[in-house]
Formats: sequence, C-alpha cells, structure tokens
Amino acid sequence: MPNKVTITTVAERANVSRQTVSNVLNAPEIVRDETRRRVTQAITDLGYRANLAARQMRTGRSRLLGVRIDRARVGVEGAVMDRFLHGLVDAAASHGYRVVLFTAADDRREMETFSELLSSYALDAFVLTHTHYGDGRAAWLRRRDVPFTMFGRPWGTRTKHNWVDVDGSAGTALATRHLVEAGHRRIGFLGWPAGSGVGDDRLAGWSRAMADARLAVAGLSRRTINGFAEGRAAALDLLDGRRPPTALVCASDTLALGAREAGGVAIVGFDDTPMAEATGLSSVRQPVEDAAAACVEVLAEELDHRRRPGATARTGRRVLLTPQLIIRNST
Amino acid sequence: MPNKVTITTVAERANVSRQTVSNVLNAPEIVRDETRRRVTQAITDLGYRANLAARQMRTGRSRLLGVRIDRARVGVEGAVMDRFLHGLVDAAASHGYRVVLFTAADDRREMETFSELLSSYALDAFVLTHTHYGDGRAAWLRRRDVPFTMFGRPWGTRTKHNWVDVDGSAGTALATRHLVEAGHRRIGFLGWPAGSGVGDDRLAGWSRAMADARLAVAGLSRRTINGFAEGRAAALDLLDGRRPPTALVCASDTLALGAREAGGVAIVGFDDTPMAEATGLSSVRQPVEDAAAACVEVLAEELDHRRRPGATARTGRRVLLTPQLIIRNST
Repeated sequence: MPNKVTITTVAERANVSRQTVSNVLNAPEIVRDETRRRVTQAITDLGYRANLAARQMRTGRSRLLGVRIDRARVGVEGAVMDRFLHGLVDAAASHGYRVVLFTAADDRREMETFSELLSSYALDAFVLTHTHYGDGRAAWLRRRDVPFTMFGRPWGTRTKHNWVDVDGSAGTALATRHLVEAGHRRIGFLGWPAGSGVGDDRLAGWSRAMADARLAVAGLSRRTINGFAEGRAAALDLLDGRRPPTALVCASDTLALGAREAGGVAIVGFDDTPMAEATGLSSVRQPVEDAAAACVEVLAEELDHRRRPGATARTGRRVLLTPQLIIRNST
Repeated sequence: MPNKVTITTVAERANVSRQTVSNVLNAPEIVRDETRRRVTQAITDLGYRANLAARQMRTGRSRLLGVRIDRARVGVEGAVMDRFLHGLVDAAASHGYRVVLFTAADDRREMETFSELLSSYALDAFVLTHTHYGDGRAAWLRRRDVPFTMFGRPWGTRTKHNWVDVDGSAGTALATRHLVEAGHRRIGFLGWPAGSGVGDDRLAGWSRAMADARLAVAGLSRRTINGFAEGRAAALDLLDGRRPPTALVCASDTLALGAREAGGVAIVGFDDTPMAEATGLSSVRQPVEDAAAACVEVLAEELDHRRRPGATARTGRRVLLTPQLIIRNST
C-alpha cells in the first residue's frame, strides 16, 4: 500500500522537528518520555508506517534481538527463565531494541533458526541461554560475525566472547556457610548428574565451603535428575546412610521441596521460586533481572562499537554476578 | 553496508529458483523443510541479508506479531502463560510469523507500546492476553484497523472481534461432577474476588453443576485473592463453618495447594501446574497450546483475507475450547 503520510507530516502534527521524529523511530531511548508519547500519538493518529528497510539502510540495524525460549520442564525453576525473559524485554526496550522469540528442539535447529532470522528479519544480535559443554552455537555465530551474548558461561571452552552469568558456586557456598554458622557439621548436598556446567559449579561451592570449615564431605552428596520425587528419594538415601546429614544444600528448589518431604533436616534450595517463598524454604536467589540487563547492555555497546568508523575487534565482556541467600524457616 | 549478494546468487548456490528463495524469505511455511534448510544454509554461507522494507512493500506485511508478557505473580500459575507463549511462538513459526515481546505496566502503557511497535516495526497484528472488564485495548486497535486476537473473552462487552478462550466454567463443572460421583454432597468452592471475568466464570461452573445435582451451595464458597496462605485461611474458615465441606473445587492450583494444608478434604485445583503433578493434586487442565495455535490461525486467516482484492469486513472468529480434568490422589 502506498503511504502518503511522511515524517514531515508527523513532525508538523506533533510540533517537533523531523529529526525528533526520526529519533523516536530509530533511537527512542534518547527522546524524552513526553515528547516520545506525543510523536507516537501523532504517528498513530496519522497511520504512519515506518519503512523498515529505510531505517535498516540508514542505521545499519534492525533493532531486533533474538532469544530462544524453552518448554518449561519438570519442577518449579521455570519461574527463573520467566524473570530473565521479562528483564530482557524491559532492558531491551530501554535501549531501543525489541526481542523476537523462537523455539528450537536442539542446538542444530537453533542454528538453522539463526539463519532464518538473519536472512528474513536481519536481527542485530542474539542472546544465548542454556549454555552447556560442547555448545556449538557461539562458534557458529562468531564464524558469521554475528554479535551475541551468552547468559551462562561457555563451559569447557576458552573463548573471548561476551557472557553474563551468576556465580552459582558462590551461592551454594553462602548456603553452606549459613548452615555451618547455625551449628551444623554434617551438611549434605543434593545435586544434578555430573557433566552439567551449572550443576558441577553448584557442587563445587558446597565442597569449597565445607573444606574452608574443615568439614568432611565423604558420603554426604547425592546426584540425581531434577524432580520432586528424585529429591525426596535422594534425601532418604542420604538420611539412611552411615553419616546422615543434619542439613542439606540443594542445587534447585525442586530438589529441596522433594527433600523436605523426607523430613527432619534443615534445607536450602536454589533459585528462590514462588514455591520457596510460599512454603518458607530458604533459597539462593539469582539476580536474574540484573543479568538480563547486563546482557542487553553488553550487546548495545557491542553494536554501537561496530558502527564506529575503523572499529577494531574487541575482546569479549564478561560479567559474573553474585547471588544472595534468602533465609526462611527451613533453616 | 552495501550488499553484493542477491537473491539470484543465493538461488544459484542452493540450486533452486529465485521464486523459491523468495518464498523462503516471505512465506517459509509453504517451502519443504529440506529445501528451506538448503536455502537458509546458502543465505548464511553467502552472508545475504534481506531487505526488510522491500519485503514489506512487496507483501504488505512484516510477518511480526506482538504479545505482552507479564511479570510472574504470586503462586504457581506462571507456568500456564509460559505454555501459552511457547505454543504461540511455535504456531507463529509454522505460519511464517515471528513473535515480538513487550512489557507494559497497564493498559494505557500497552496502547502506547502498540503505537511504537506499529510505527517502528510495522507489526502485522497483536495477541492480547489478560482480558478484563473495561478493557480498552480492543477498541483502540479496532479504531486504527489493526488486526488482533484476544486470548480470553471480551468480558462485559458485546463485540465482533476475534477471540480464543478456554471454557473455565466447564472446567469447574467437570471437577464438581467428579466429586459428586465420588459421593461428596457438601462440595465447597474457593475462588477469587468478584469482578474478574475469569474468576466469576469458574465460580459459575461450580454453581451450575451443584444445581444440576440438586445440591445446596449456601455457605459453601469463599472468595480471596490468589495465594497459598490465602487458600489455607479460606479453607480453614469454610471447615470451621456450620456446614463444613468434604471436598473443595478451587479456582487455581495456588489456592488448592494452600487449602490442602488445612487438611482432611478432597481437593481439585485449576491449571494443572507442575506443582499439581508433583504433589498428586487433581486439577483442571487448560488446552493452552491449542489456544495459542488457534490465536495464530485466526490471525493468519485474517491477514490473508485482508490482502485479497476487494476484501470485505469480517465478523470476528470465536473459539471456545474445553478443558479436561486430571484426576490424581487428592480426590
């Protein structure tokens, strides 16, 4: 459809300069709220539709970021990725970007989707979540010089790319020290099977804090897949052993809520889900909104940097945030 | 950046026609998987970046749909909107659309964001969630002739626009009949404060099923805001009354999980959250993925219809889906 409404018409209606209208369309974050509202109202009243490609040619970017969402799994930790996504969308908007979602069953399908999104929508950058050992996505994007940030460390590889993460081992160490201070000596750990970067990291924090307190860890940990029944079974198994723990640090609220049914021990979960709050479970809280905001800031900087004449290659930005312990009546 | 790679280059590399490359970019859903993969691989290898505006001019659409996400609230029902969002993104992709997210603190801010998204990204349509009495968003979009579908009925207004919803009263009626069949006669209801379309609808299903079974309802219902502690308190209050119920139908799993702590009665929740599954709570399950798919189908049809020469106005499509009861050991 041909469109007779131009930037000039919009500028006259909103009583601002053409440059201001252009800013609202291309860099809304630099325009005052009140002015932006007036301009967008004029745009809407007049039915002006931006020419996406014109902006793309002019600014060299689509102002769209891509992120994959996953089907919620067993357990209550879905709430964390919810908070991340919300934080990401908010932070993106405040930097003048929007977030496009996609799903992908595995890494290979995700890389195919990168292709489709780059070719069809000219996305500016991606945020990668659920990083893991053997993750090929970062290398794929680097080969094609597509900007990205990982939420999660690049487990098992040495790379120079951007990442933002929360220090999980600091979280389980905090939980362990809290239990030591409360007088516990036999503090157990319920974690996930070996080979998950996040799970191994959370185990390491407990081991380190136990060593720091000169407490033995032999026979005090169990590894199981995430689940309520699994948490309960693993806790019962530990409590049945030769050295039953008097307290448990868990790699997730799901494991902790299951373990709680085994009864009789102090318990700390991980992720401070709504169920932890509702049931009085102490839990390690990740600053997920801060992590999301850091992902967007790192990307916005990278995209700005790349547009400068003669920009040289940059080394990746790394942001590691510290979680906090929320103490409730389970400890 | 000037781009020397053209559709012709891509077509040669992938050994397909230029039309096929164009289809992959503009209507990917009509291209066979294997061919699409080959073309997107060629696009990526060659570094081809589509001209968004060219497509927009040619096809009259951006192939972007907008949806608001909300911060997870108290309780466990966040998992339902997660399933909806995932279903929406999947269904959109299979129709050749992508989903752009935004947040908004209230309806007024949401309408401002509609403006920004229409002017800056030329979104094709919106999916509205969390419909409520006095909802002004539909009227706003209709005045500007922007296609949309509501997930949720237009409570309290007579309108002709598209909506998709799940029949909540059918769900609570199912739950009530199940309890009647199990021999219960004093079946209570825990619901939300009057004035929420969804809450009033769920209450109505229980009332109707009780009337059908010729059972009295006086003194058997309580209304409270959603929360575990609130569910527990309301259940205790009912159980303390003159006619203590032997079973409870609840408007949410959160209320049901709280009520369960009051003990001693059969309980059915609503939304079949992961916590219901983990703790053996019977619950009403909404076909949320089907609802999301229906939202996209309705919009895709509407957008296709509008592009036909001489297209006339259409009456809104309405899709009301039926939930199912998942029976576990709480009943």
